[in-house]
Amino acid sequence: MYTLIGNPKNRSFRALWALEELGLAYEINAADPRSEAMLAVNPTGKSPAMVDAEYPDQAITDSAAIVQYLADKHRELSYSAGTIERAQQDAMLHFVNDEFDSVLWMNAKHKFAYPKEYRRDGVIDGVMYELARSMAVLEDRLAQQSYLMGERFTVPDIVLGHCIGWLKSSKLDWPETGPLNDYARRLTSREAYLRAAEIRKGYLV
Amino acid sequence: MYTLIGNPKNRSFRALWALEELGLAYEINAADPRSEAMLAVNPTGKSPAMVDAEYPDQAITDSAAIVQYLADKHRELSYSAGTIERAQQDAMLHFVNDEFDSVLWMNAKHKFAYPKEYRRDGVIDGVMYELARSMAVLEDRLAQQSYLMGERFTVPDIVLGHCIGWLKSSKLDWPETGPLNDYARRLTSREAYLRAAEIRKGYLV
Repeated sequence: MYTLIGNPKNRSFRALWALEELGLAYEINAADPRSEAMLAVNPTGKSPAMVDAEYPDQAITDSAAIVQYLADKHRELSYSAGTIERAQQDAMLHFVNDEFDSVLWMNAKHKFAYPKEYRRDGVIDGVMYELARSMAVLEDRLAQQSYLMGERFTVPDIVLGHCIGWLKSSKLDWPETGPLNDYARRLTSREAYLRAAEIRKGYLV
Repeated sequence: MYTLIGNPKNRSFRALWALEELGLAYEINAADPRSEAMLAVNPTGKSPAMVDAEYPDQAITDSAAIVQYLADKHRELSYSAGTIERAQQDAMLHFVNDEFDSVLWMNAKHKFAYPKEYRRDGVIDGVMYELARSMAVLEDRLAQQSYLMGERFTVPDIVLGHCIGWLKSSKLDWPETGPLNDYARRLTSREAYLRAAEIRKGYLV
């Protein structure tokens, strides 16, 4: 039994999607970032956190760490640690985090997330320059395979799938045709994704 | 046998440090980011990459993925995948990547790494605001333990140790006393760090 702490409208969705992919039993405590419930389990106040009932006093923070933990524990969605395939998968996870999550987050910081005195105009230009370059790398990769790691759906697909939704909801440029768009459709057609997305609808931003 | 591809003056240092911690045999090809040699193994051109002679055609990219691969393969510097301790360790690694590496990198992008037309003035203010907040979280944590994960030196310590050096060489504010500074001294007193730092001296920026 797992308790997901975080609102599925934010990065918590990644953990929700993984729980659905793995068919695990869970409940949701839709605490907001920096709320009392979130600060109690994560000193940074960032969403999400997750509690595994086997270790009730050791909440896990960070969406990617949560998804990877579930994948390793239940032996699905991931190659095994110490293999060359896992090294490639981890590299892809960090690529997605660095080139999509962090870049989208830089945009969000300067648009609304930072206190006003730290926001700067025009940061979006560098953001779009970076995203275009990273999307070109992925277009090449996904022209030849169904998922980031080949034909197997793994942890970085969940993180990138969430980032693509974030990118689209931020109204940033997105290629409406081609391998990356086909990949996005493939992700959002998965049964577990559809279940998680349906659950997400029940929560407010 | 391992071949580290990248200049030890950049993030490649993390892999070099890990190789020294583990006492492994390696050689260095100090290729620059976006050089022909780097693009041949990493389509993004980012440093470092590493080749494990067991898998000569499958270069590993991303410094954190390389360090974690070495740790898992040689069963040191890391908790085992699927354990609650590894989940905490991964969360700490992502925290360091998100709150130090990405923030320092955002600063570098707007100072020199972006083409001129994308650089914006004053991004440093948000960078300093974020770093101060993250350093406060670490001061609390490191007041009670020697390393990020307790008394055991693990993968995220290597990444943070490198980021602290980067922060200092960027001339950003650093607390010259207290738990975080003590921690930094502990890291840079390690024999493997000292050996790696000595090797780094032989390379140009």
